[in-house]
Amino acid sequence: MPDPRFFSSRGPLSLAVLAELGDARLVRPDDGGRLIATVARGADAAAGALSYGVSRTELRRLAPSAGACITTDALVAEVPPGIPCLAAVNPRLAFARMANALYPDPPPAPAVSDRATVDPAAVLHPECRIEAGAVIGARVEIGAGAWVGCNTTIGPGVVIGARTRIDANVTVVCALVGADVRIHAGVRIGQAGFGLVMDGSAPGHERVPQLGRVRIEDRADIGANTCIDRGALGDTVIGEGAFLDNLVHVAHNVHVGSHAVLAGQTGIGGSSTVGAFTATGGQAGISDHVAVGARCEIGAQAGVTRDLDDGARVAGTPAVPIARYLRQAVVLGRLATRRGQAAGDAGS
Amino acid sequence: MPDPRFFSSRGPLSLAVLAELGDARLVRPDDGGRLIATVARGADAAAGALSYGVSRTELRRLAPSAGACITTDALVAEVPPGIPCLAAVNPRLAFARMANALYPDPPPAPAVSDRATVDPAAVLHPECRIEAGAVIGARVEIGAGAWVGCNTTIGPGVVIGARTRIDANVTVVCALVGADVRIHAGVRIGQAGFGLVMDGSAPGHERVPQLGRVRIEDRADIGANTCIDRGALGDTVIGEGAFLDNLVHVAHNVHVGSHAVLAGQTGIGGSSTVGAFTATGGQAGISDHVAVGARCEIGAQAGVTRDLDDGARVAGTPAVPIARYLRQAVVLGRLATRRGQAAGDAGS
Amino acid sequence: MPDPRFFSSRGPLSLAVLAELGDARLVRPDDGGRLIATVARGADAAAGALSYGVSRTELRRLAPSAGACITTDALVAEVPPGIPCLAAVNPRLAFARMANALYPDPPPAPAVSDRATVDPAAVLHPECRIEAGAVIGARVEIGAGAWVGCNTTIGPGVVIGARTRIDANVTVVCALVGADVRIHAGVRIGQAGFGLVMDGSAPGHERVPQLGRVRIEDRADIGANTCIDRGALGDTVIGEGAFLDNLVHVAHNVHVGSHAVLAGQTGIGGSSTVGAFTATGGQAGISDHVAVGARCEIGAQAGVTRDLDDGARVAGTPAVPIARYLRQAVVLGRLATRRGQAAGDAGS
Repeated sequence: MPDPRFFSSRGPLSLAVLAELGDARLVRPDDGGRLIATVARGADAAAGALSYGVSRTELRRLAPSAGACITTDALVAEVPPGIPCLAAVNPRLAFARMANALYPDPPPAPAVSDRATVDPAAVLHPECRIEAGAVIGARVEIGAGAWVGCNTTIGPGVVIGARTRIDANVTVVCALVGADVRIHAGVRIGQAGFGLVMDGSAPGHERVPQLGRVRIEDRADIGANTCIDRGALGDTVIGEGAFLDNLVHVAHNVHVGSHAVLAGQTGIGGSSTVGAFTATGGQAGISDHVAVGARCEIGAQAGVTRDLDDGARVAGTPAVPIARYLRQAVVLGRLATRRGQAAGDAGS
Repeated sequence: MPDPRFFSSRGPLSLAVLAELGDARLVRPDDGGRLIATVARGADAAAGALSYGVSRTELRRLAPSAGACITTDALVAEVPPGIPCLAAVNPRLAFARMANALYPDPPPAPAVSDRATVDPAAVLHPECRIEAGAVIGARVEIGAGAWVGCNTTIGPGVVIGARTRIDANVTVVCALVGADVRIHAGVRIGQAGFGLVMDGSAPGHERVPQLGRVRIEDRADIGANTCIDRGALGDTVIGEGAFLDNLVHVAHNVHVGSHAVLAGQTGIGGSSTVGAFTATGGQAGISDHVAVGARCEIGAQAGVTRDLDDGARVAGTPAVPIARYLRQAVVLGRLATRRGQAAGDAGS
Repeated sequence: MPDPRFFSSRGPLSLAVLAELGDARLVRPDDGGRLIATVARGADAAAGALSYGVSRTELRRLAPSAGACITTDALVAEVPPGIPCLAAVNPRLAFARMANALYPDPPPAPAVSDRATVDPAAVLHPECRIEAGAVIGARVEIGAGAWVGCNTTIGPGVVIGARTRIDANVTVVCALVGADVRIHAGVRIGQAGFGLVMDGSAPGHERVPQLGRVRIEDRADIGANTCIDRGALGDTVIGEGAFLDNLVHVAHNVHVGSHAVLAGQTGIGGSSTVGAFTATGGQAGISDHVAVGARCEIGAQAGVTRDLDDGARVAGTPAVPIARYLRQAVVLGRLATRRGQAAGDAGS
C-alpha cells in the first residue's frame, strides 16, 4: 500500500467508477457500490486495497482481505470467491489507470519560491511552479502548469511547455521542451556534444563548436541522470512520447523516434537515428551514424554497428538477428562442452 | 601523503596505539613509542609516514624514510632493517584502520546554513548539519549527526538516519534512509521507476504509477551519480552494508542484499534480487525479474539473464559459469587462429 | 543555422579573414570581400551561411543559397558554381576554426552572484564569474576568467585554474583543476573512491580511507555526469587535453594520458593507466590495475583485462586484437549458419 508519507489517495472511489476508468467489466455488477481507497500488490493487499493478477500463481497469493482484483476474463474463476473481481483485456493497463485515478500526480501549487533566482527577462506563466534553489535564465519561457524542481538550472532562452514537470537538480540549456514532458532528477539536457577534430600539425584535439539545440517533444519521459547533448549544427531530437530510462547517453544530432523506449544505461552515438516504437534493452549501444528502423527490438548489452530495417530483432556485439545470436550461443556452448569433456572437466 | 589542503591528521599517534587499533603485532616492541602523523604509499612514503606492503616488490620499493610499514608475518624479514615493522593477518585492513584513526572523517559541525531552505514542518535533530543550498521538504526527519551537503534536495516525508552523510547535489525523495549510510555526490534516490504499459488501441505508452519507496539500510554506501528508483508498489531495498559504486542503475523493486558489492556502471533490471555478499564487476548487467543468490561473483560486463544459485561464479553475455566462459574463449580463439593461418595471416 | 535564442554571432567576417583563420585557400580570391555571418550544415545552409562538405554527396546536397563552402582541393570542382569556395587540407578543422571565430564561447561577465555562497576564506580572482546557487568552500582558489555555474559546489581547498569553465550542478572536492579546462553539467570530481576491505572475522566490509586527490590538467574536457574519484593515496590524474565524454567512470588512482579520448559510458577500474592519445569507443571497460599504452584504439563495448602495448587496436570481451576479433566473429557466424541450415532454418 502506498506510504501516506509520500502519496495521498484522492479516493475512495467506487468500483463502478474505477471499472469505467479502467475499461474493465465488473464481474458481479452488485459490487459497483463498494469503495476503494488504495492499491497494493496481490500478496500485500491491505484490507480494501485494489490489486491485480495475470496468472493463477498471482491470484492464489492474493490476500483474502483484498478490496478488489483485476484479472482477465479467462482467469476470473481463479479469484477467491469473497473478493470483488474486475475483468479487463489488459489488467495491468486497467490497474495503471485506476491507480492513476486514486493517486494522481499532484498538480503543482503555482508559486515562485523566493529562494529561486529568476532572471527579470524570463517569461513565467502565472500558473507555473518554481521551487527553491532553481535558477531561471534570461528569456526563458515556462508554460502553464509547468513545474521546475529544487536546485534545477534552466539556461537562457530555453522554452518549457505546459504541464511539463522537471525534477530537482536538473540542468537544461539550449533546448526547446514540449508539453507534458517528464524530466527526472539529475538529467542534463543541451550541453555541448563530444565534437573534436585533430590538427595533424599540432598535438591534441580542437573542439568543434556545438551550435545546435535539443528538442524534446510532447509527453517524452527522461530518466534520472540521463544526458542528451545538443546538436553540433541542427537538433538532437527526442520524439513524442519516447521513454528514456536512467543513465542513458544520447549524443549530438541523434533523433530518437516517437514512443521509442530506451532502457537503463543505453548509449547512442552521434547522428544516429532510432525509429518509432523501437525498444532497447539495458546497456545496449548504438554506434554513431547508424539508422535503426521503427519497431526494432535491440537486446540488452547489444552493440548495433549497422543500419537496421524496420522490425529487426537483434542481440549481441556486434548485433546480429536474434535467431542467429541464439544459434551462435548454442554452437559455442557445444564446442566448449566438448572441450571440457575432452579435458576431463566436470563440466558446468 | 594526504594533501593538508584536503585532509587534516589527528595524529601523531604512537605505533603502540596504532598496532592495537589495527590488530597488528609490533615486530620490535621497543618501537611502540615512535610517533606517526601521516600515511603514504610505499614508494612515496614521506619521512615518518605509515605505509604497507604485501609483496616483496612493494616492500623493496619502500622509501627508506618511511616511518613504519605493515606487512604479513611471512614478509617481515623483507622490510628494510631501519624501518619499524608491524605484522598483521590482513595488512591492508590493518592499514585502513590505522589510516582511519589518523584521518577520521571529520564529524559534521552542527549547523543549519541560512542559505539552506528548510520546511517549517521538517524535524531536524539539533546535532545535524544542513549546508548551503540544501532544500529540506515538509515532514522530513533528519537524525543526530547526519549531514546534508550543499545543493542537495530532500523531498517531503523522507527519513534520514543518524550519522548518515549525504554529499552535495544529491536528490532523495520517497525514501527511508538508515543510519551511518554514505551517499556520494549526484546520487538520485526514489524517483519514479521505468513503468510503462501499452494500450493496443492507442499509440504510445501509458505510465504505470510508481507508488512505492526506497529503503536504504544501515551502513550502505552509494557511489556518485548512481540512481535508485522507488518501487512501483512496495520497496526497492539496498541492504545493510551494501556498497554501490558510481553510475550504478538500480530499477524499481530491486532488492540488493546486505554487503553486496556492485562495481561501477552495473545495472539491475526491475524486480530482480541480488543476494548477500554477491559482487559484480564493472558494467555488469542483471535482467529484470532475475534472482541472483548470495556470495555470487559476476564478471565485468557480464549479462545475467537467469537465476543464479548461491555461490555461482559467472561471466559473459549471456552469463555462463566462469569455467565454461573461459573454455568458450579458448575454443573461439583456436578456431580463429586456424582460420587466420589458413588465410595466411600473420596471426595476432 | 544556430538559433539566435542560444547563440550570438560575432560576425559578419569577410571570407578573406575566415580563410586565414582556417588555414584555407580562397579558390577565387575575388570572393575575399564577401561577408559571412553564420554557419550551417550543407543541406540547411540558410542564405549566406558558411558550410563544408568532404564528399560529392555532401556537396551535391548543398543549398544553392549557401554563403560559402569549405572542401578539399580534390573536390573543389564539385562545389556548385555560384557558391564561393575555400579549399583546406582538413575542411572539418577549417570549419571548426571559422565557426569558433563567428561563435566564440562568450567570455564570462565577471561577477559574483549575491545568490552564490562564498566562504570568506576563498580567494577569487576579481575577473572570475560565480553564478547563482554556487557554493564555494574555504580556501578555494579560482583563477582569472574562470566560470563556476549555477548550483555547482566547490569543496574546501579546491584550486580552479584560469579560464576554466565549470557548468551548472557540478561537484568538485579534493581536486586541483588546471587552466582552460571544460567541465560539463553534473560532473562529480574528487569524491571518495570505491575502496573496501573485508575482515574475515566480522561480517561486511570496512571502508579504506580515500586520502588522495584528483588532478585535472590544462585543456581537459569532462563530459556531463561523468565521475572521477580521488586517489586512495596519491592522485587520480586526467592528462592535458584529454577528452572524456558523458557518463564516464574513472576510479581512484587512474591516470588518463594527455589527449586521450574516452567515449560515452566508458569505465576505467582503479589504478589503471591509459596512455596519451589512446581512444575508447562507447561503453568500453578497462579492468583495474591494467596499463594501456599510448595511441591505442579500444572498440566500443570492449573489455580490456590485460596490459596493452602502445598502438594496440583491440575489441571484444575479453579484448583481443581487432583482426582476431573479426576472425572470431566470422568463424562463429559460419558455424551458426551451418547449424541453422542443418536444422532447416530459413537462416538470417
